[in-house]
Amino acid sequence: MASPFADILELLQLAPDGDETAVAAVREHDLQLTKPPGSLGRMEDLVTFLARWQGKETPTLDNPMVAIFAANHGVTDQGVSAFPREVTAQMVANFTNGGAAISQICALHEINLRVFELALELPTGDITREAAMDDRMCAATIAYGMEAVEGKPDLLAIGEMGIGNTTVAAALYAALFGGTGADWVGRGTGVDDAGLTRKAEAVDAALAHHGDTLTDPLAILARLGGREIAAMLGAIIAARQQKIPVIVDGFVATSAAAIAQAVSPGAIDHCIFGHVSAEHAHQRALDAMGVRPLLNLDMRLGEGTGAALAAVLAKTALHLHNNMATFASAGVSNKG
Amino acid sequence: MASPFADILELLQLAPDGDETAVAAVREHDLQLTKPPGSLGRMEDLVTFLARWQGKETPTLDNPMVAIFAANHGVTDQGVSAFPREVTAQMVANFTNGGAAISQICALHEINLRVFELALELPTGDITREAAMDDRMCAATIAYGMEAVEGKPDLLAIGEMGIGNTTVAAALYAALFGGTGADWVGRGTGVDDAGLTRKAEAVDAALAHHGDTLTDPLAILARLGGREIAAMLGAIIAARQQKIPVIVDGFVATSAAAIAQAVSPGAIDHCIFGHVSAEHAHQRALDAMGVRPLLNLDMRLGEGTGAALAAVLAKTALHLHNNMATFASAGVSNKG
Repeated sequence: MASPFADILELLQLAPDGDETAVAAVREHDLQLTKPPGSLGRMEDLVTFLARWQGKETPTLDNPMVAIFAANHGVTDQGVSAFPREVTAQMVANFTNGGAAISQICALHEINLRVFELALELPTGDITREAAMDDRMCAATIAYGMEAVEGKPDLLAIGEMGIGNTTVAAALYAALFGGTGADWVGRGTGVDDAGLTRKAEAVDAALAHHGDTLTDPLAILARLGGREIAAMLGAIIAARQQKIPVIVDGFVATSAAAIAQAVSPGAIDHCIFGHVSAEHAHQRALDAMGVRPLLNLDMRLGEGTGAALAAVLAKTALHLHNNMATFASAGVSNKG
Repeated sequence: MASPFADILELLQLAPDGDETAVAAVREHDLQLTKPPGSLGRMEDLVTFLARWQGKETPTLDNPMVAIFAANHGVTDQGVSAFPREVTAQMVANFTNGGAAISQICALHEINLRVFELALELPTGDITREAAMDDRMCAATIAYGMEAVEGKPDLLAIGEMGIGNTTVAAALYAALFGGTGADWVGRGTGVDDAGLTRKAEAVDAALAHHGDTLTDPLAILARLGGREIAAMLGAIIAARQQKIPVIVDGFVATSAAAIAQAVSPGAIDHCIFGHVSAEHAHQRALDAMGVRPLLNLDMRLGEGTGAALAAVLAKTALHLHNNMATFASAGVSNKG
C-alpha cells in the first residue's frame, strides 16, 4: 500500500527553483538608487527574496497575508502550559474580532489575516503515551494546509496558536536534531520552574515511548507533532508551488520548516525566518537549520507576530526599491 | 572668561528624570492585554520608554519626527570617502524632494522629516592638521541643534548626512574610548582597501596632532567632530528638556550620544539606539556605551534610516498597547 505521504515527499523533493533573472533585474535597478551599493543591507535582501520566489522582476506586495493555524494538544494533560486549553478557541475568536496583537499589527499595516481552526474540539493524542496523529490524519492535515494558501497572496507569513504547542515543537526538534527535553523546552507562555520540569519530562517521555518509530521526518511529525504544525508544513509546500515567498514566525512555526528541510534541504529556500524568539531553544533550532532570523525583539507570543513585523520591513523595503530616486533622476554624483 | 560650554554642561549634568508613574500605568494596562505578560518583549519596552520620557500615562505618537543634520568635513581632503564632497548638498536636495531612502520610509509610515543644513559651503577644519571648530563655533552649533527641536514632536529620530563623517566619528570614538584608527574605521559608503588605510591614518594623525588638547568630551567634539554631530548633541539635550524620547541612528549619530554620555552618564537615558550598523565599529561603540540596539539589518546608510525603522516599530508597539483587547473584554481565560 502506498504511503499517505508519497505525494508530499515528491512535492518537497521537487520544489521549483527560484528566478535568478528576476533577481538580476532587481539588483540592476538597486544599483541606480541614491545610496551606496549594499547600504540598505538586509532590506535589499528582502527585495531580491521577493523577486526570486515570486518570479517577478518588479516584485509586488499588494496582497500580503498572515495565516494562523490553531490546534489543541493532548499533551496539555501533562501540565505543560500556564494557560488552560480552552484559551486556544478563545484566542481564535480574539484574532477574528481584532483584539489580538496579530490582528492589530495586520490592521495597522494593511496585511490580510486569515485564521484556520483545526478541529479544536479534538486535541491530538498525548505524545507521552500515544501518537499525536496517525499517518493518514497527518497527511490529510498537511493537505488542508496546502489548500489554505488561496486568494493569491504575494507574501505568506505563517504563525500558530495552540496551548501546549511549545512542548510539541520541542519534541520535534529533539527528534530531528538530537538532545534531550531540557535542551529544547522553555517557559512558553510563562510556566514556572515545576512546569518547565514537566515540559522537559514530557518530551523525554515522548521520545522514549516513540523511539523506534521516529524513522523519518514525516513519521516524526505524525507521532510528536500537532495539527497546526502539519498544516503549516502544507502551507510552506503549497507556497513554493504557487510562487509565494514565505516568512516563518517563531519557535513553533519554525518546527514545520524544520520538517520540510529534513526531508529535502532546498525545500525551504523560499522561506525566511521573521525573528528569533525569546524561547531560548529557537536560536538553537535556527542554528541547526543554518538560517539567520531577521529580527530579535525578545518576543515569544506566536500568532505570527514576529513574521508580521518582518513583513512590515519587507513592505518598507519594496516601497524604497520602487520609489527612491536614481542617481540620474536626482542629479546626485555617483561613486568614484 | 566663562567657557562657551558652561550652559551645555549644566543641561547635561542636570537632565530631568523619567516619569516612573507613567511607566507603572503603562505596565498595569499591559498586564490586562490578551497575551502572556512580557511576551511582546522589546515591543513592550518601547511603550514604557515612550511613557517614561514623554511623562504620559497614555503615550502618543501623533507627531514623530526624523531630523537629519547635514554638514561637510575638511578631512575629505585626505581621500577618506568613496563619494565627492558635493554629494552632501545633492543628498540634502534629494531628502527634500522625496527621493532618498529616509524620505520614502517617512512617507510610507507617516513620519515627519526635517532636514537641517549646517553651512555646507564651509567644511570644518581638516582634523589631521587643525581643529574642526573652535569652542565658540562648536557651542553655537550645539545651540543650533537645540533650537531645531521645535514643532513639539512626541518622538525624535536623529540622523545625519556628511561625506567624510564616518572618519570623524571614528576619531571621536578613539578619543573617548581609546584604541587606534584601525579599531574604529570601516568602509563607510564603500571605500576600497587603500581608502580604508587612509581613514585609519587620518584618525591616527588627528589623535597625534590634537593629543594634549583632548581633555574633555566637548573639547574632543570641537577638535575632532563635525557640525552635524554637534547639532545632534544639541538635539539630544533639548529633547530631554522638552520630554521628547529620542531614537539615535547609526555609527555617526551614536557619536553625538557618546559625547553626551561621556559628560554625564544619565544624559542619554532618554535615548534608544535604533540599529547597529554594518560599519563594524558601531557595535564596539555601543558596547563601550553599554547600550543595546533594537535592529540589526546590516544597514550602513545613515540619513536616520535605522532610527526611522525603529520608530516604525515604536508606532506599531503603541498601536498594539492602545488597541488590543483585554482578557476581560475578549472573554479570554487568564493565566492560572
